[in-house]
Amino acid sequence: MEREIDVIKETFEKIKNMEIRGAGRIGRAAANALKTYALKIQDLNDEEFKIRMKKAGELLVSARPTAVSLPNAVKFVLKGLEDENPKIGVVKRAEEFINSSLKAIENIGKFGANRIRDGDTILTHCNSEAAISVIKTAYDEGKEIKVFCTETRPRNQGYITAKTLYDYGIDTTLIVDSAVRYFIREIDIVVVGADAITANGCLVNKIGTSQIALVANESRVPFLTAAETYKFHPKTIVGELIEIEERDPSEVVVFEGKYKGIKIRNPAFDVTPSKYIDAIITEVGLIPPQGAWYIIEKYFGWLK
Amino acid sequence: MEREIDVIKETFEKIKNMEIRGAGRIGRAAANALKTYALKIQDLNDEEFKIRMKKAGELLVSARPTAVSLPNAVKFVLKGLEDENPKIGVVKRAEEFINSSLKAIENIGKFGANRIRDGDTILTHCNSEAAISVIKTAYDEGKEIKVFCTETRPRNQGYITAKTLYDYGIDTTLIVDSAVRYFIREIDIVVVGADAITANGCLVNKIGTSQIALVANESRVPFLTAAETYKFHPKTIVGELIEIEERDPSEVVVFEGKYKGIKIRNPAFDVTPSKYIDAIITEVGLIPPQGAWYIIEKYFGWLK
Amino acid sequence: MEREIDVIKETFEKIKNMEIRGAGRIGRAAANALKTYALKIQDLNDEEFKIRMKKAGELLVSARPTAVSLPNAVKFVLKGLEDENPKIGVVKRAEEFINSSLKAIENIGKFGANRIRDGDTILTHCNSEAAISVIKTAYDEGKEIKVFCTETRPRNQGYITAKTLYDYGIDTTLIVDSAVRYFIREIDIVVVGADAITANGCLVNKIGTSQIALVANESRVPFLTAAETYKFHPKTIVGELIEIEERDPSEVVVFEGKYKGIKIRNPAFDVTPSKYIDAIITEVGLIPPQGAWYIIEKYFGWLK
Amino acid sequence: MEREIDVIKETFEKIKNMEIRGAGRIGRAAANALKTYALKIQDLNDEEFKIRMKKAGELLVSARPTAVSLPNAVKFVLKGLEDENPKIGVVKRAEEFINSSLKAIENIGKFGANRIRDGDTILTHCNSEAAISVIKTAYDEGKEIKVFCTETRPRNQGYITAKTLYDYGIDTTLIVDSAVRYFIREIDIVVVGADAITANGCLVNKIGTSQIALVANESRVPFLTAAETYKFHPKTIVGELIEIEERDPSEVVVFEGKYKGIKIRNPAFDVTPSKYIDAIITEVGLIPPQGAWYIIEKYFGWLK
Amino acid sequence: MEREIDVIKETFEKIKNMEIRGAGRIGRAAANALKTYALKIQDLNDEEFKIRMKKAGELLVSARPTAVSLPNAVKFVLKGLEDENPKIGVVKRAEEFINSSLKAIENIGKFGANRIRDGDTILTHCNSEAAISVIKTAYDEGKEIKVFCTETRPRNQGYITAKTLYDYGIDTTLIVDSAVRYFIREIDIVVVGADAITANGCLVNKIGTSQIALVANESRVPFLTAAETYKFHPKTIVGELIEIEERDPSEVVVFEGKYKGIKIRNPAFDVTPSKYIDAIITEVGLIPPQGAWYIIEKYFGWLK
Amino acid sequence: MEREIDVIKETFEKIKNMEIRGAGRIGRAAANALKTYALKIQDLNDEEFKIRMKKAGELLVSARPTAVSLPNAVKFVLKGLEDENPKIGVVKRAEEFINSSLKAIENIGKFGANRIRDGDTILTHCNSEAAISVIKTAYDEGKEIKVFCTETRPRNQGYITAKTLYDYGIDTTLIVDSAVRYFIREIDIVVVGADAITANGCLVNKIGTSQIALVANESRVPFLTAAETYKFHPKTIVGELIEIEERDPSEVVVFEGKYKGIKIRNPAFDVTPSKYIDAIITEVGLIPPQGAWYIIEKYFGWLK
Repeated sequence: MEREIDVIKETFEKIKNMEIRGAGRIGRAAANALKTYALKIQDLNDEEFKIRMKKAGELLVSARPTAVSLPNAVKFVLKGLEDENPKIGVVKRAEEFINSSLKAIENIGKFGANRIRDGDTILTHCNSEAAISVIKTAYDEGKEIKVFCTETRPRNQGYITAKTLYDYGIDTTLIVDSAVRYFIREIDIVVVGADAITANGCLVNKIGTSQIALVANESRVPFLTAAETYKFHPKTIVGELIEIEERDPSEVVVFEGKYKGIKIRNPAFDVTPSKYIDAIITEVGLIPPQGAWYIIEKYFGWLK
Repeated sequence: MEREIDVIKETFEKIKNMEIRGAGRIGRAAANALKTYALKIQDLNDEEFKIRMKKAGELLVSARPTAVSLPNAVKFVLKGLEDENPKIGVVKRAEEFINSSLKAIENIGKFGANRIRDGDTILTHCNSEAAISVIKTAYDEGKEIKVFCTETRPRNQGYITAKTLYDYGIDTTLIVDSAVRYFIREIDIVVVGADAITANGCLVNKIGTSQIALVANESRVPFLTAAETYKFHPKTIVGELIEIEERDPSEVVVFEGKYKGIKIRNPAFDVTPSKYIDAIITEVGLIPPQGAWYIIEKYFGWLK
Repeated sequence: MEREIDVIKETFEKIKNMEIRGAGRIGRAAANALKTYALKIQDLNDEEFKIRMKKAGELLVSARPTAVSLPNAVKFVLKGLEDENPKIGVVKRAEEFINSSLKAIENIGKFGANRIRDGDTILTHCNSEAAISVIKTAYDEGKEIKVFCTETRPRNQGYITAKTLYDYGIDTTLIVDSAVRYFIREIDIVVVGADAITANGCLVNKIGTSQIALVANESRVPFLTAAETYKFHPKTIVGELIEIEERDPSEVVVFEGKYKGIKIRNPAFDVTPSKYIDAIITEVGLIPPQGAWYIIEKYFGWLK
Repeated sequence: MEREIDVIKETFEKIKNMEIRGAGRIGRAAANALKTYALKIQDLNDEEFKIRMKKAGELLVSARPTAVSLPNAVKFVLKGLEDENPKIGVVKRAEEFINSSLKAIENIGKFGANRIRDGDTILTHCNSEAAISVIKTAYDEGKEIKVFCTETRPRNQGYITAKTLYDYGIDTTLIVDSAVRYFIREIDIVVVGADAITANGCLVNKIGTSQIALVANESRVPFLTAAETYKFHPKTIVGELIEIEERDPSEVVVFEGKYKGIKIRNPAFDVTPSKYIDAIITEVGLIPPQGAWYIIEKYFGWLK
Repeated sequence: MEREIDVIKETFEKIKNMEIRGAGRIGRAAANALKTYALKIQDLNDEEFKIRMKKAGELLVSARPTAVSLPNAVKFVLKGLEDENPKIGVVKRAEEFINSSLKAIENIGKFGANRIRDGDTILTHCNSEAAISVIKTAYDEGKEIKVFCTETRPRNQGYITAKTLYDYGIDTTLIVDSAVRYFIREIDIVVVGADAITANGCLVNKIGTSQIALVANESRVPFLTAAETYKFHPKTIVGELIEIEERDPSEVVVFEGKYKGIKIRNPAFDVTPSKYIDAIITEVGLIPPQGAWYIIEKYFGWLK
Repeated sequence: MEREIDVIKETFEKIKNMEIRGAGRIGRAAANALKTYALKIQDLNDEEFKIRMKKAGELLVSARPTAVSLPNAVKFVLKGLEDENPKIGVVKRAEEFINSSLKAIENIGKFGANRIRDGDTILTHCNSEAAISVIKTAYDEGKEIKVFCTETRPRNQGYITAKTLYDYGIDTTLIVDSAVRYFIREIDIVVVGADAITANGCLVNKIGTSQIALVANESRVPFLTAAETYKFHPKTIVGELIEIEERDPSEVVVFEGKYKGIKIRNPAFDVTPSKYIDAIITEVGLIPPQGAWYIIEKYFGWLK
């Protein structure tokens, strides 16, 4: 029976080492792993099945502490355990999560693209499915746009974003993270993704995001975040702080020989306050950041 | 006679390709090259000597457009051409420039260290002789300090700074450029160098500096720049804009194969407005940024 | 049958050329035109009636692109076409719109007047029914108030406001639009109307409004907008940008002879960000601008 | 029958002269007085009972104009008069109010404590049950915390807070009200109570609160207010301004002899705008200040 | 002898009724009138000459209270009365003032044009010789520029500016004063003139200027004022406030008939604080606004 | 010989325990003590005289670390030791310091009063000779003014200010320190004194000053500090930080019995950044805070 759990362990590993990255992809990967695992262990009796599924869920959730899409996906799927037939329930909900996640990306693309005008230059940071969906949709609508991507140190996800957009035919420029303020007056709008949204409308996203938001605000450039509703963090409604993951220093640099002894701090995310966010683009519409709390209450009350 | 000029050409190359970096080092290197060249061509008649020296100066000045220490150093040295004996004049002034530059670093270290309190955590950016002098002097005075260094993409001069301070015995932490806002509330004071200071008190320094200043200002963390007076830009007093050098994209990354076609913009500097600068530490004292104009008028009137 | 449509065309013209101005009046005029038209063509069969009514609605909506009261009124009225008896339905809903619009103005007057204290000096811009209702109600309550009105170039609607308030017995002062910051410290509260409110709490109103809000914010003077709920823009919830109407240059000045060739730009509205708005006074209560989205979802869900 | 009313009069007096202070305690004291009174006059017929209870309620409400907990408590209790058995109804609702008020303090403690991190230094102002509950809960959870208390002139309630926390075992420091900006960079989070919350998210609290919020905002220190939902002010939704009580000058100082003639102004509260408030901690969760309006509509619609 | 004074009286009238407008033109007109008058009354004895000249100066100075160029010009010219030959002295100094004023405009044009980059869009307000000199010089240097002019109510001097620039071949757009914030993100730099500069670096200029500066600051658009040194106000160094002239209401509108009774306030200038001014362009160089005090001390010490 | 030193010791004690308070009074008391002492020990030989005088100066300077008027006065007086006749020199310079200090107060009163308009309401903090001179002078000029004084905890110097102004006939109101933001929109101008001014234009003054400046800035109320030039701190030009004196907790409250154990922090001063200061009123004129450095260089170069 041990080998069935491997699908969970593999997904756990890929999320942990960031082979699978991006809050949406992580959530879907977790849902998919739970589904696969459920199908593999469906011959167990219901009680045993539930115990195993819960353990599998716990393992997955432990892979990365900050991205709320992970526990939200797991909770969404495991709520199927309460169905009359828990095995069917889990599989059905896993599929539902995946489908609605993909549909959400599409809707966010449409809603967000409404905010892009012909001729706009857009700045994005890191590599967000939802933000890219906004940009591609605007391009698909025939708008002539340009995009600036930041490198996004230390893991340089900005290169992937730049490659993706360039291959799509979009005029794409890459800059170092430090150059945002230098170029900001050429930028018409900033669009980034989200790892989590808090009850009071703050955005938890890739390290550097809050600096960009501050810089955009200083120059009156609109700053939007594209976030599926499953990125809204239910526990923040009872005051829980989102733990900011500090990842291995080796992601920044491996200090050997003469450099040995210098410390490295490598937080993966930072927090952008609501006052620097013009709107959150969700699949249920564009909301002010202060509406996050209402969204959590409406859509995720049961998750608390 | 062609080979004498090689010392100028070599220095020109090293400045251009950033083998010699840092406004102070560039100025001294230029002064030294002019001195060496002057000694090599001292057998020429005065008229010929002057022509050659001026041409050498022009070549050196063209190496990098932004750092004002370069033209200031060259002008300072070549003013010796107006002496009765231009050959002695040039050599004497070259030595004077070098000595007073080194002395300036020492004084700035002392004045700046007065602003560091025991127990402070300091943030610095890039690799500035003057800023490092402030930090080392504070450490020499027995103050228990910690330092955060940014990577300083694209050329990562922050690693050199971190190494220098760590070797000196100082508790040193390296972070990516994007993480400044995340850590700023742990920082007690920011100290950076300067490539140029304008008549209305703006700071031209390594790309990313203005973002750090904005972030520090948002959290009420004092932001100081350490700048020898020869970094004050005389031509800004007649309104000239300092040209911001855009360096080769290959410094950021070399896009080959599949990435080919993505543009890169690589400005080497940005401009920090005076309102984000608490004080400029010069070798003649600590001044408010708005005093820059008076310094230029007092010390560099003749340079205009 | 052609002549029945004239009532629609006339109203269309009057709205377009601003003979009928003000978001509330425009909405009521449209509702009234639809009612009159419906009564005139009530002998048509239902199918034909519906087609004609929809066409009439489309024509009216095209008169001015920015003021959302127009499409909201038309949609509200035409929803009557879904009734069992579409003819009665349309007429009933037209009357309902008009009555509730007038009632809204009254309620807004009462709620807003609660914010005016005895002795206050109020600043208003342009010519808003709802804002005037607030001011008159405060005056009716016996509060001793003074009002400053801006000219509101280019069409000088401020003169109408000044005349209206002066005739009502209120101490009224007129100033040029440029003088707002000069007088702001004498002002206790700013009350303006609204052409549209967006999902993320921005105010679209007469050109110049956003400057006044910025100026009020700089001096900590409360800035309120009085807006009936039918001015909240449903489509902004899916990210649609409100098109800002640029009107004919001749409204500013007719350049003839020697001036010919100089361009004129004449946008009719601008956008005030939510951060400069202390509250929106609606007929259902005073809300923070960030509550706009909830209002749209609650009252206009069906309009999307 | 006259002596039964004494329990109401005594409570009225104690609230008026601030023997009973703090919005929560005032609300519970009022509820308790109404209950006791109801029991004493239960032999009256229903009609007479209702009249007396309403009069008692009116008297209590008049004790202090600003704290909304008082009318909210009275209204909550007197709604029992509408029950079939008004005598039982009133007693039951009085007990319900008291219990849910105490439970609210506990929940707020838990939710708020989630925002306190190990090692944090907290600043509080005046003497708030809810804020103290947050601090004590964080301490109970084993977090190593320090607290700064302001004196809170003129009645020095900060001394009571300091004593309470010190007796609880917490490291407590007292400062004058003027010293907040001096110490703010040592503070990690500000937690205060609330006398009332308005529909547009403003906080009415002890004089001096808004200055602290401004100072915290200037240095990017989070500012939280802990407020039970019965402190949200229903009438602000129709625009009513909360009257700021000006108390007797003798609370500040009694000017006799040579000082006689100098005026004293002694407002008991001030208003903190929503933009300086990071979150409101309520017993139903942490909300952004802009969510206040929704809370009022949801929980207190019937109170309007 | 009465008719000689007519030249003074005429100039006084033309300045008062704004036939002669613009601080530079006013100063030169006053200098010229004094010169003409001096030549006319040169047959008087020295004592009588001096008395008459002083009286003439006083009359001229009283024409407009705000523009400091007027008293500065008069004082500059009348200092010639202290010469051995007062008659020659006055004439010589009058010519000197006029010449150096014209030369100042030229220098300011050159220095300011250095701040304009190819492709820039410039915003200007009112009709300033110095600001126009900056714009024309930039155009003469071959830079491709566009200019936005505000109407500048109530006297619409913006039309004259627009006409002047358009005739010079520059792409010119006119907007109403209220539309500045709407267009500001299309603007690269704001350049205005000055009526007076105070010791602490504030700018007194045409009503509306301070709103434009605030708007520019909100969007990080550089704001420059072009001011000859004789516009720096010596008396502000001893704290004197510059009186803001309130002109006749009829400049705004003539209220007749039905409008009669509405008040009009018509201040001609407002005050822009130094924090919104990036630099002052003077004929002796570009200075930070805080350098104004030093300029006054250096150039106008004797004027106090 | 021991008893002569008593005059120094007494003055030292009175300054230390704040019997003598206020930077100006402290400076003059020190000068006077030195003069008295010098006269008492004038029979000593020059060498012995100089040693004693220097020791006396050192003792005086140690009384309070923050107020720079103390060392500035002592240095000014002791510079007389360099005269040919050091005994006469010291006495002469002591008298000169005292006289020019008194004259400075008078000039500051005149210059500052120029900034007060008829009808203004002024806010002041603590008990400053220079600020009171401004207020009294404005009153003497016939301006109808009102003054708000803060208590100025912990030593309540505001009561002395209130008494002084009230006795002078001025309409005076006292408020607690926490109430500044509540009343600020009724205030037209803030005028405070200074304990020290730094080279980069910061103001060191009584604890609470920086909060008032922040509050004034938030509401666009001008904030002025009245400071004799001997309050400008020469050592800040070489970067030295001004030590902020923390005084005995017993000044706040004496914790006995049940309160024992609660800590008290009692800093006497705080630092107001230059950006919140509109101007410094000195006896040589009104300067922008950024001019402080120039004043130090000009008047106190020799003090460094």
